[in-house]
Amino acid sequence: MTMIGVLGGMGPLATVDFMAKVISLTCAESDQQHVPMMVANLPQIPDRSRSILNGDEAPLPYLLKGIDLLNGNEVGLIAIPCNSSHHWYAQMCARSAAPVLHIAQTCVDAVPAGISRAAVLATRGALASGFYQQALAARDIEPVVPDDATQLGLDACIRDIKAGRLAEGSAALADVLDALAGSGVQAAIMGCTEIPVAAQQLGETRFTLIDSTLELARATVAYATERGWNRF
Amino acid sequence: MTMIGVLGGMGPLATVDFMAKVISLTCAESDQQHVPMMVANLPQIPDRSRSILNGDEAPLPYLLKGIDLLNGNEVGLIAIPCNSSHHWYAQMCARSAAPVLHIAQTCVDAVPAGISRAAVLATRGALASGFYQQALAARDIEPVVPDDATQLGLDACIRDIKAGRLAEGSAALADVLDALAGSGVQAAIMGCTEIPVAAQQLGETRFTLIDSTLELARATVAYATERGWNRF
Repeated sequence: MTMIGVLGGMGPLATVDFMAKVISLTCAESDQQHVPMMVANLPQIPDRSRSILNGDEAPLPYLLKGIDLLNGNEVGLIAIPCNSSHHWYAQMCARSAAPVLHIAQTCVDAVPAGISRAAVLATRGALASGFYQQALAARDIEPVVPDDATQLGLDACIRDIKAGRLAEGSAALADVLDALAGSGVQAAIMGCTEIPVAAQQLGETRFTLIDSTLELARATVAYATERGWNRF
Repeated sequence: MTMIGVLGGMGPLATVDFMAKVISLTCAESDQQHVPMMVANLPQIPDRSRSILNGDEAPLPYLLKGIDLLNGNEVGLIAIPCNSSHHWYAQMCARSAAPVLHIAQTCVDAVPAGISRAAVLATRGALASGFYQQALAARDIEPVVPDDATQLGLDACIRDIKAGRLAEGSAALADVLDALAGSGVQAAIMGCTEIPVAAQQLGETRFTLIDSTLELARATVAYATERGWNRF
């Protein structure tokens, strides 16, 4: 049996959201047709965004411990439903025997053709790291980073979801999207896995939202089902 | 670090529901205050209900493999969000270094005082195994098992949730509860972890529903937070 390894807990609800998306994207009539997963839900990993901004490496030993744990458990692929942690993607890949999907790459690959300007909704740390801006630029899409007032609302949204305040997080996100509507973006990338949890309760939006959790789940299910990990 | 071990995948959505309940029952303002979990989501474990009815032991080696996997990963407690698998509870406990919670016991312990008749909503296998009836009888509560027509509706509900058909599963459960309303029960135990997933979309019901997933999550969070597994 080969399993999908999930390095999670960043935050825990985002991991649950990722697992639910993997399950709903898998064609299955019975339990046995679903893909097996080993999920290391490790919320004690220090705050990724803060460390990127501080220039310290506090999360790295914990991330590598998670990679080691999963590699000790028959996983054939690792997915990490936390965008900011991908600041240390190269180090995690170097440590892991199993390949590691890059959440931002799966997400940017999913931006529909014809979109030339996309907002990046992410933590301040992920924005400072710059991997979304680079991946978008490589596809000739102009990345738009929210102004400071809008980013403050997004920070609140992320904090609310991590604390389980779903209604407040959702309201904060609605305000962020309203503020972005005037900026001429055609799409917004939900490049922090708390944001899609907040977005679940929103109605229709004025531009395309691209969900990094969903795109990571899509890539994960494709990889696992092509290899028959859900067949006896 | 000590983690909660979750032996899941039976079915996968029920495992996600369990994890979401653990998270929502934990008082936490940040990721780091949540409890760490190692989740073996193993949907390939053969159908538990069918094996109990056939008198074969097909799931047992898979269940024990799951127990071994978790014990190899620093878990201090094991929770299994699948009722029918508790037919093999004694064998799993005998194999596990970490203590294993009994879902039916946590659930029956949560039946409010004053209730003397409770319906048991479970798979045919779990009903044949009889652990819910025994646990209720030990509390002087009369267990009421659905008649065959009602059980057929419940079988459909469970099958629908395992296949991801949430609306159909919910409609099937509503019919089951309507059928039970005339039987004089004061409460119904949702003694199969697919049933609470179906119940999420129901409105108010005419009698108390007791959720085995929620009660297992409550016992799990209490055990882990009393021991400080969510503190650095």
